[in-house]
Amino acid sequence: MTASVFDHPILSGLLGDEEIGAHFSAAAELSAMQRFEVGLAGAEAAEGLIPGEAAEAIAALQELFVADVDALRRSIGRDGVVIPDLVRQWRATLGEHGKHLHVGATSQDAIDTGLMLRLASVLSIFDQRLATVQAALDGLEAGFGAKPLMGRTRMQAAIPITVADRVAAWKAPIIVHQAAVQHMLRLRLPLQFGGAAGTLEKLGDKGGAVRARLAEFLQLSDRPQWHSQRAVIAEIGGLFSQITGSLGKIGQDLALMADNGTADIGGGGASSAMPHKRNPVKAEVLVTLARYNAVQISGLYQSLVHEQERSGAAWTLEWMILPQMAIATGAATRLATEVLQAIEDLGDR
Amino acid sequence: MTASVFDHPILSGLLGDEEIGAHFSAAAELSAMQRFEVGLAGAEAAEGLIPGEAAEAIAALQELFVADVDALRRSIGRDGVVIPDLVRQWRATLGEHGKHLHVGATSQDAIDTGLMLRLASVLSIFDQRLATVQAALDGLEAGFGAKPLMGRTRMQAAIPITVADRVAAWKAPIIVHQAAVQHMLRLRLPLQFGGAAGTLEKLGDKGGAVRARLAEFLQLSDRPQWHSQRAVIAEIGGLFSQITGSLGKIGQDLALMADNGTADIGGGGASSAMPHKRNPVKAEVLVTLARYNAVQISGLYQSLVHEQERSGAAWTLEWMILPQMAIATGAATRLATEVLQAIEDLGDR
Amino acid sequence: MTASVFDHPILSGLLGDEEIGAHFSAAAELSAMQRFEVGLAGAEAAEGLIPGEAAEAIAALQELFVADVDALRRSIGRDGVVIPDLVRQWRATLGEHGKHLHVGATSQDAIDTGLMLRLASVLSIFDQRLATVQAALDGLEAGFGAKPLMGRTRMQAAIPITVADRVAAWKAPIIVHQAAVQHMLRLRLPLQFGGAAGTLEKLGDKGGAVRARLAEFLQLSDRPQWHSQRAVIAEIGGLFSQITGSLGKIGQDLALMADNGTADIGGGGASSAMPHKRNPVKAEVLVTLARYNAVQISGLYQSLVHEQERSGAAWTLEWMILPQMAIATGAATRLATEVLQAIEDLGDR
Amino acid sequence: MTASVFDHPILSGLLGDEEIGAHFSAAAELSAMQRFEVGLAGAEAAEGLIPGEAAEAIAALQELFVADVDALRRSIGRDGVVIPDLVRQWRATLGEHGKHLHVGATSQDAIDTGLMLRLASVLSIFDQRLATVQAALDGLEAGFGAKPLMGRTRMQAAIPITVADRVAAWKAPIIVHQAAVQHMLRLRLPLQFGGAAGTLEKLGDKGGAVRARLAEFLQLSDRPQWHSQRAVIAEIGGLFSQITGSLGKIGQDLALMADNGTADIGGGGASSAMPHKRNPVKAEVLVTLARYNAVQISGLYQSLVHEQERSGAAWTLEWMILPQMAIATGAATRLATEVLQAIEDLGDR
Repeated sequence: MTASVFDHPILSGLLGDEEIGAHFSAAAELSAMQRFEVGLAGAEAAEGLIPGEAAEAIAALQELFVADVDALRRSIGRDGVVIPDLVRQWRATLGEHGKHLHVGATSQDAIDTGLMLRLASVLSIFDQRLATVQAALDGLEAGFGAKPLMGRTRMQAAIPITVADRVAAWKAPIIVHQAAVQHMLRLRLPLQFGGAAGTLEKLGDKGGAVRARLAEFLQLSDRPQWHSQRAVIAEIGGLFSQITGSLGKIGQDLALMADNGTADIGGGGASSAMPHKRNPVKAEVLVTLARYNAVQISGLYQSLVHEQERSGAAWTLEWMILPQMAIATGAATRLATEVLQAIEDLGDR
Repeated sequence: MTASVFDHPILSGLLGDEEIGAHFSAAAELSAMQRFEVGLAGAEAAEGLIPGEAAEAIAALQELFVADVDALRRSIGRDGVVIPDLVRQWRATLGEHGKHLHVGATSQDAIDTGLMLRLASVLSIFDQRLATVQAALDGLEAGFGAKPLMGRTRMQAAIPITVADRVAAWKAPIIVHQAAVQHMLRLRLPLQFGGAAGTLEKLGDKGGAVRARLAEFLQLSDRPQWHSQRAVIAEIGGLFSQITGSLGKIGQDLALMADNGTADIGGGGASSAMPHKRNPVKAEVLVTLARYNAVQISGLYQSLVHEQERSGAAWTLEWMILPQMAIATGAATRLATEVLQAIEDLGDR
Repeated sequence: MTASVFDHPILSGLLGDEEIGAHFSAAAELSAMQRFEVGLAGAEAAEGLIPGEAAEAIAALQELFVADVDALRRSIGRDGVVIPDLVRQWRATLGEHGKHLHVGATSQDAIDTGLMLRLASVLSIFDQRLATVQAALDGLEAGFGAKPLMGRTRMQAAIPITVADRVAAWKAPIIVHQAAVQHMLRLRLPLQFGGAAGTLEKLGDKGGAVRARLAEFLQLSDRPQWHSQRAVIAEIGGLFSQITGSLGKIGQDLALMADNGTADIGGGGASSAMPHKRNPVKAEVLVTLARYNAVQISGLYQSLVHEQERSGAAWTLEWMILPQMAIATGAATRLATEVLQAIEDLGDR
Repeated sequence: MTASVFDHPILSGLLGDEEIGAHFSAAAELSAMQRFEVGLAGAEAAEGLIPGEAAEAIAALQELFVADVDALRRSIGRDGVVIPDLVRQWRATLGEHGKHLHVGATSQDAIDTGLMLRLASVLSIFDQRLATVQAALDGLEAGFGAKPLMGRTRMQAAIPITVADRVAAWKAPIIVHQAAVQHMLRLRLPLQFGGAAGTLEKLGDKGGAVRARLAEFLQLSDRPQWHSQRAVIAEIGGLFSQITGSLGKIGQDLALMADNGTADIGGGGASSAMPHKRNPVKAEVLVTLARYNAVQISGLYQSLVHEQERSGAAWTLEWMILPQMAIATGAATRLATEVLQAIEDLGDR
């Protein structure tokens, strides 16, 4: 099955992003959730809640454990989440230490935290990618900035500006978005840890201490559970969509400039009917990705209506939307760099 | 990469649909586009535009041709569409007959038509699935219809109704949606065939005749090109989203009924923290899928703003959205049947 | 307050539509709901459920009754719907006959049916407006159809076509949408009549007969209650959004043609900074309205998840969205006609 | 016309917000834009670009000037923006000083800046309102916090928690949103000032100094023009939608609690068919407003694709969406406070 362009063996050559996509593979997910369990066991051992030996055995899981993915696939059709069967498999591997794994935790703790670990890596990549986009824009400014360009407002020639003026308008939001990414990384994404209904009821008075240790181990921020408070997801998705939106504006401008002869873009696409054409494919796709994320973001905000202590309906909707928004954002940063670097001329002829 | 829950080796066990998904595999796509070329060559040969021998060679492609998917993947990053390189590969396989393949056609003809061929199969499956959902509802009516149920309006007990009353409200829209699916199939989905800019300029006065033959061969309806007129895509997506919406209403009701004790649903999901629970997972996921499609449909309407003779930006957006809407709809019909069949009791205790 | 551009004393000069908007005034709403009550009383009298005298008194309401809008405004903050206080006011006006008004009905019956009555008028207007758009397109075809125009695909010159080719691509979906409007009118929009929980429980065995008489009186189609089955709303909104989408494609093309010199549009807008400009304002706004409705349609599909016998949450969301979609569609038909009629030249220079 | 529930003489009693709505009246808009012109004239006089006398005359406009709203309404149908005719009217009032008004500015400078001035006021109100919501939640915590409540996950009883646990999950995001509002106010919303195409070309080397003075006068932040960089709009809309989302979660929980008997909410709504009911209308409407804003936010992200130096299409779309999102947010804060204060009991019976 290749439902998604991002997973598609052909279309991903245009729309995919291998580096970002790798963080949303099943293997990356399982590994991140395992890292949660390792951290949890370590923290609980340090607080005397489980034996140190058990924590060591759990820490060694990453070398020993091979998931039975088929069993996971079957179980999720019943359980709605992967964790019950995954805990069963982990425990079977651990033998006697098994009962000390996942103590006091619930599915959402492992899944949400595993997501945050991967999103932190994704944000770090975006930090670098946005720097690369800026460098490409700086290159255009250096190469063509002094050239005249007819400013255009409301789809009409307005007054003369320079290429540098337009490039500056492209660059300013990229700087802002990179700063927002860095700010998010500096504050650290949040650990989710609350247990069955958010009260860490099984850890007695050690709940806070375990949570703090776990957060530190995972390099996430320590905060009370947010299992039913999903604004953080909407905010991350919002940042992704701001990035694709600002890159989409560049793409739209470039496509219009290619159309009216004020941009020469190398490496344009071929047509099966018209071999002479040089289509500004990557510029167009930046528009596509911007509109795609602008559609998707609505779903993350719908998911804020997350009833009671945990909403299966609202939570599952996030899984359907956020990974693809992340990859779309990755693809947009990649394509923006490629198309900007392929520009051979900019400005009025 | 597993960007999409539908392609995910684990999550697809909950949210996927193998039967529908198969129609969106790369293999199914390539095969459908090849079928377009076979039909086109046959029609052009019948009209004397290409040699009959060439048409026969093209018809034999399905046995001979193996796509170089890596090359397609590389080319699409440049061309934005798969067809230029695919035509090159097909022609290389065909040798001397190669120049008679894809005569007068453009990428969009093969891709849009290939999509319609697969959507026709998808609609046929939905026709059957919606019948199965109705049968499951009839089973509930037969089994529990006479039982009393407190009618609830605005989240409050209103007046007593019967289980049959509520089941009737679930069933009525399913009948309507099935009729709409059947109507669409009866009218046949439309062939797209217009050439480089929609005018079939390379076929001279044979354009109409070739189009009519091609439509008949493919069992699609014969109509003028619609490459920049995308309401048909929005309409199909709208029907998908109506189906998931009406099934989502059933899911929401069942989740509430499970919560307040007026539905016993077998096979509910386990919790990693609370082994005693019996979560109405499939009912919840019906809500998720309804909200997912309700988000996505917006993108198909955005794509109606399809500039000039062909918009790369708007068209590519459809590729990102419609296949997943189809699979979400498939999953919803599957899950609805499963959850309805798993109901052990309905109505006030 | 002027939250909406459609209600705004200034912005409505650009974006509003007085004729369509009139059907969404409070007066029009109250009048349509009163018509429901008149029809209901007539049908109930004919079936012997209420005295003929009462039905006559109710039929005379439209001459006597003046709503206390302030009281309605206060009551809705508590009741969530206008009907409880409106029924109280109507009954007070009617005196002894008052108790025979609204017998067996509930808020949703009056409100949904009142909406359908107004939507039928709106659809009739759209039928005419779409004919006018087609006539304007015919005028362009007659005036400039033979002129050459460079066909453009993926934002690049493709092959030469004629103005007639492009105009044909604009016109085809308008014909389809008009046919869909006429089809909807021919089938008649549906009466909503179900009573407190959809079972017409207060009418005994006369429920069906009353409903049939009421539908006939109101010229709506007679069908079982659909108070929790909202696909009809999504379908109407979908048609609105198809219309704005197809007109938005025309607007986008015209804006691009104004930009590259292949359309001369008279009456363009002034700029406060650049008096020489002639902005293709109406063409741009067609794009805006298309994107607006493409955003809104998502909300109508979200509303399909309409829990139990009546969802205050889902229903109220429809009220926030559908009227503005209707007016946006009206404005688009108006602006499309204006901009098409203002075209002074089309085609390559 | 009453397209919008927020402008509707009856429905605004439920869904409107007079205090927030007042900032989106035509009068408030005109006044804010006039304030921009006053500040601009003052700054330009201080920099020696226009006579001090002219600046004084312009500062006195607010006492003298009465807009001809009909003329504005007529002109916007042509110009797409209100400013060209408004400048004409202002200049006519000013006589000889008229030519010194709006020097070096363009429509977007006055309109975007006028919007920011009003949004700053709106954010200040939200700051207070969110404090009030928190106080109401504190009241619930104090009154019922110790009472037991069955925690519910995935629509099923999970483990016992307390009312305080759930109230804490309601309150945490409100604190975060209030902090975000305060942060935005502390950074100050941005002045928009760029002239015809963003280069302040008419102000020579005084552009930066005028902009800095103008920003200080208006208490906005001084930054380069952002007329084609709209992420700030998406970000403000995102914050609004986060607020309504978090309040919608409270509303959804309360509606479910009213349904299952763990919340007693006073002042519930009447039904026209069932006088005994006590509908949790305000709780439901919180869900409606959350979903409404979650739909709308998509449009603000679509508007990020803002082509060239100014896009009429993308900019106008913002006008259609943002004011209603602001009022929806206001209504949600108002209704949340009302419903929380009306709670008479919370927790298991």
